Amino acid sequence: MKIAFLGLGTMGLPMAANLIKAGYQVQGWNRSAGPREKLASLGATPAKTAADAVMGADVVISILADDNATRSVVLEGNVLAMLKPGAIHLNMATISVDLAVELAQLHRARNIGYLAAPVLGRVNVAEAGQLNILAAGDSALLAKVQPLLDVLGQKTWYLGARPEQANAAKLAANFMIASAIGSMGEAVALVQGYEVSKADFIDLITSTLFAAPVYKGYGQAIASDIFEPAGFKLALGLKDVRLAQDAAERVNVPMAIAGTLRAAHVESLAHDEGHLDWAALARTAARRAGQL
Amino acid sequence: MKIAFLGLGTMGLPMAANLIKAGYQVQGWNRSAGPREKLASLGATPAKTAADAVMGADVVISILADDNATRSVVLEGNVLAMLKPGAIHLNMATISVDLAVELAQLHRARNIGYLAAPVLGRVNVAEAGQLNILAAGDSALLAKVQPLLDVLGQKTWYLGARPEQANAAKLAANFMIASAIGSMGEAVALVQGYEVSKADFIDLITSTLFAAPVYKGYGQAIASDIFEPAGFKLALGLKDVRLAQDAAERVNVPMAIAGTLRAAHVESLAHDEGHLDWAALARTAARRAGQL
Amino acid sequence: MKIAFLGLGTMGLPMAANLIKAGYQVQGWNRSAGPREKLASLGATPAKTAADAVMGADVVISILADDNATRSVVLEGNVLAMLKPGAIHLNMATISVDLAVELAQLHRARNIGYLAAPVLGRVNVAEAGQLNILAAGDSALLAKVQPLLDVLGQKTWYLGARPEQANAAKLAANFMIASAIGSMGEAVALVQGYEVSKADFIDLITSTLFAAPVYKGYGQAIASDIFEPAGFKLALGLKDVRLAQDAAERVNVPMAIAGTLRAAHVESLAHDEGHLDWAALARTAARRAGQL
Amino acid sequence: MKIAFLGLGTMGLPMAANLIKAGYQVQGWNRSAGPREKLASLGATPAKTAADAVMGADVVISILADDNATRSVVLEGNVLAMLKPGAIHLNMATISVDLAVELAQLHRARNIGYLAAPVLGRVNVAEAGQLNILAAGDSALLAKVQPLLDVLGQKTWYLGARPEQANAAKLAANFMIASAIGSMGEAVALVQGYEVSKADFIDLITSTLFAAPVYKGYGQAIASDIFEPAGFKLALGLKDVRLAQDAAERVNVPMAIAGTLRAAHVESLAHDEGHLDWAALARTAARRAGQL
Repeated sequence: MKIAFLGLGTMGLPMAANLIKAGYQVQGWNRSAGPREKLASLGATPAKTAADAVMGADVVISILADDNATRSVVLEGNVLAMLKPGAIHLNMATISVDLAVELAQLHRARNIGYLAAPVLGRVNVAEAGQLNILAAGDSALLAKVQPLLDVLGQKTWYLGARPEQANAAKLAANFMIASAIGSMGEAVALVQGYEVSKADFIDLITSTLFAAPVYKGYGQAIASDIFEPAGFKLALGLKDVRLAQDAAERVNVPMAIAGTLRAAHVESLAHDEGHLDWAALARTAARRAGQL
Repeated sequence: MKIAFLGLGTMGLPMAANLIKAGYQVQGWNRSAGPREKLASLGATPAKTAADAVMGADVVISILADDNATRSVVLEGNVLAMLKPGAIHLNMATISVDLAVELAQLHRARNIGYLAAPVLGRVNVAEAGQLNILAAGDSALLAKVQPLLDVLGQKTWYLGARPEQANAAKLAANFMIASAIGSMGEAVALVQGYEVSKADFIDLITSTLFAAPVYKGYGQAIASDIFEPAGFKLALGLKDVRLAQDAAERVNVPMAIAGTLRAAHVESLAHDEGHLDWAALARTAARRAGQL
Repeated sequence: MKIAFLGLGTMGLPMAANLIKAGYQVQGWNRSAGPREKLASLGATPAKTAADAVMGADVVISILADDNATRSVVLEGNVLAMLKPGAIHLNMATISVDLAVELAQLHRARNIGYLAAPVLGRVNVAEAGQLNILAAGDSALLAKVQPLLDVLGQKTWYLGARPEQANAAKLAANFMIASAIGSMGEAVALVQGYEVSKADFIDLITSTLFAAPVYKGYGQAIASDIFEPAGFKLALGLKDVRLAQDAAERVNVPMAIAGTLRAAHVESLAHDEGHLDWAALARTAARRAGQL
Repeated sequence: MKIAFLGLGTMGLPMAANLIKAGYQVQGWNRSAGPREKLASLGATPAKTAADAVMGADVVISILADDNATRSVVLEGNVLAMLKPGAIHLNMATISVDLAVELAQLHRARNIGYLAAPVLGRVNVAEAGQLNILAAGDSALLAKVQPLLDVLGQKTWYLGARPEQANAAKLAANFMIASAIGSMGEAVALVQGYEVSKADFIDLITSTLFAAPVYKGYGQAIASDIFEPAGFKLALGLKDVRLAQDAAERVNVPMAIAGTLRAAHVESLAHDEGHLDWAALARTAARRAGQL
């Protein structure tokens, strides 16, 4: 099985590396040269263009930054045009539902399999091959690439036969993260109004009711006021909240909390905080309360 | 040490029972007779009135339903008036910050110690003596009742010298629960718009990013559409969101998400869902999306 | 017909003066002496206490600052207790629906007529006897005081047989004012993001689609950034938005826009703007956009 | 002066007719033939394609339905490509700021003048030549077409040298309309909770504080529950609220009320009300309150 891997960013590189370690033959491509060379040093065949990388591939895995990067590489970069009929494209990026629907149609028209498989988990989880994979698309196709997914993740959650179903679920999950951060922000602003230490409060809730990874991770940043380096940038969080709302509105689902969170994110950008970690969203609640 | 225990509801009764089991001498009182007799059968001395119960007590523990019940028993029911100088009143109910401040002043004026110690945990946790206790008030006073708190809970979180600090923290925690439920509701409405099974989605998120008690508990109810019997009624959830917002506005802290949640709760009441479990808040997101 | 007039503030004084000019015999009372004396100089009989003022009165008109002032004067100040059976109390203040319901019951129990008649219009309108009067209560009672209302206002809008109906309508109108100001604030923040002059934009909309008194008045303040002296203080605006939401929630009506506005008002207070004119609510939109 | 007029819809047709009546030579084009022939019967030279229509024109006026129609005609339909250097394109449609910026750049690159001039006013106002015109772009260019604008409108409001400034202002105005309707909806839900007649309440506020065209027009529809035929469809209102928010977020301006309104519009669509008049947005407030 010949695999092409497009997008060797912080997530893609360790994922591709895990496939190589598991014995797969991988052609790797990335826009910038550094990661390409890094992967080559692990045994991959580097490719100069994405179109080169996918030539002759049985499976293409892509995990590109966003809709624009995906469009630019897959459509304008001729990846789709170069794929041989019967090949499978496994798109693991967090993209819009609109693009997922469009890609599914374009692949179908060329008789290329298309699966969506965005992931939950940060870099260290990707390195450990312990991602949670949200998969959707034709189940027979999925069965063919399942061995690859088993290398990359601890579990594959199958969400339906239409690829965009996985993207909708991924965006819903990211909206929930935004909501968790935003709520912690308001709760902390409230208790700080009573001079309760925010570190004490965060410790309390993340040790009890909210003893979950999301709350612990972002909570620690809020408690310590340390938002750099960014694990996941606030500006990307805004992008995902927008994509979640767009996905929802596409099927006439109103999301009032998402709307409230969106305004808070934009306010963060207006105060030059888009480059900070997503946890910095909590600063908006504090700023509104005159606590900054 | 003579203890009076006021309020033998679903939480109060097992808490008082634990104190008796631990060897303390407890005078128990409840508005209705049933729980009084139940506690008496465990070895407590029942009292006909709250004022009777607290006569001669060194420590009064109260955990009454809400502000009105607390006012009615402690102030109008002459509990405060009957307490001997030097006694300590440990108020474990979820009450407003306003009332906490007022009670602290009234107790101080009569030279009675006043501590706030609302709890996190449901009935089974109370029975196991594993509550998390949010305590605030004079630390020397707290030290005196710490042995009692150690019987009732697994940990006491000390949040400050002013009693209302614990109430503010408790209300902030409850607001976060409302937000978790509300966000799950919108996320589920989004994925249902794409025909992703809500049970699958809830399973996914509560097994990964949101593997926390709050999400698991309420998530299960949402996934199964089972909202009765209510573990905690939606109408009480609205009360707590209001109290959280009131507490915040008292110190000029705006809470946009709380405002959004509040409107959703009121909408639930307008559709006769106040008696359902708090998880039924998720129905509002579905209703707005035309999914019900 | 003997009239007692309680509350000689900026609105009450010119209203009482108009009654005197129309030939009515008026006993006037105000907490502070200045307005009492002013009214006396116009021919009123001043009274030292509110209870004195209403003794023997056929009609009591009260327009006190808020719920607290109304409670303090009417209930604790023994106004109700002093009224003779068959007298009519015309309450023209903007009070809560809760208090309106309570007052209606208490008056009924003592066989005193009770009418709610809050007004639309500022001081100059009151002086000109051109107020719009929102009236509710028993229509036969209202007919008896209609000649007085005709002195005070240009039109009486009858809204129903229960007094609180007029209060609900008045609060709904004030919510709409808040919404108009808040919307202008966001619209202005948007166009300022494109360097359109806010004075030009305000001039445009208030000369065309929104050529209404509310938009013109508050718009001019926003355009010129002049928020002092306050025609109507922002902090009072918050009070009315709260009362509107309270009234709505009393009958299970959710108000999402009101919730959004409420958070904006609280944010104004957190930035020490409560004493400014209500138009200063627009500053919150600008602040959030980083434009201040 | 040779004029091409693209887009002969409900607004465009009477505008083009007014230019003909004023003695101008007009080439008219519309996608569907009906309006083309109607205009021809008034003396215009009909054109089969938009590109034909603009050949040799000194001024092109376009008022196409939305961004898609504008892109399709102006860019893909070769209008821009056919214009002679030095010609002026006056775009009177309500389009996005993004497209306005893009069109300005594309026209500049070809040495074609580009002005934005969206309008306020419905069909009858267009027929009467009484529109309010929001204009932006180079002021020297604007001076050249001012005689045309004077035929079409009662006043031209000049908002700045960059075309998108007029589009931002137009979207801000439309957001304010949405807000006015949404606020009336919540206010009416509140008073209906107290059994105040909504017709009475609407009559009251639109005769006093809110005696403005927007409130009167939409208010009457709300009061009478008549939402068909639609003067302006709710679904188009949603489009404009989105464009307003997009324009705002492009320059990092958060709009909380717009977010709240957006959710309400989507809820309307979820309940099959997108084809109704914009006033039907008020139904969402009633539905949430259980009043429908």
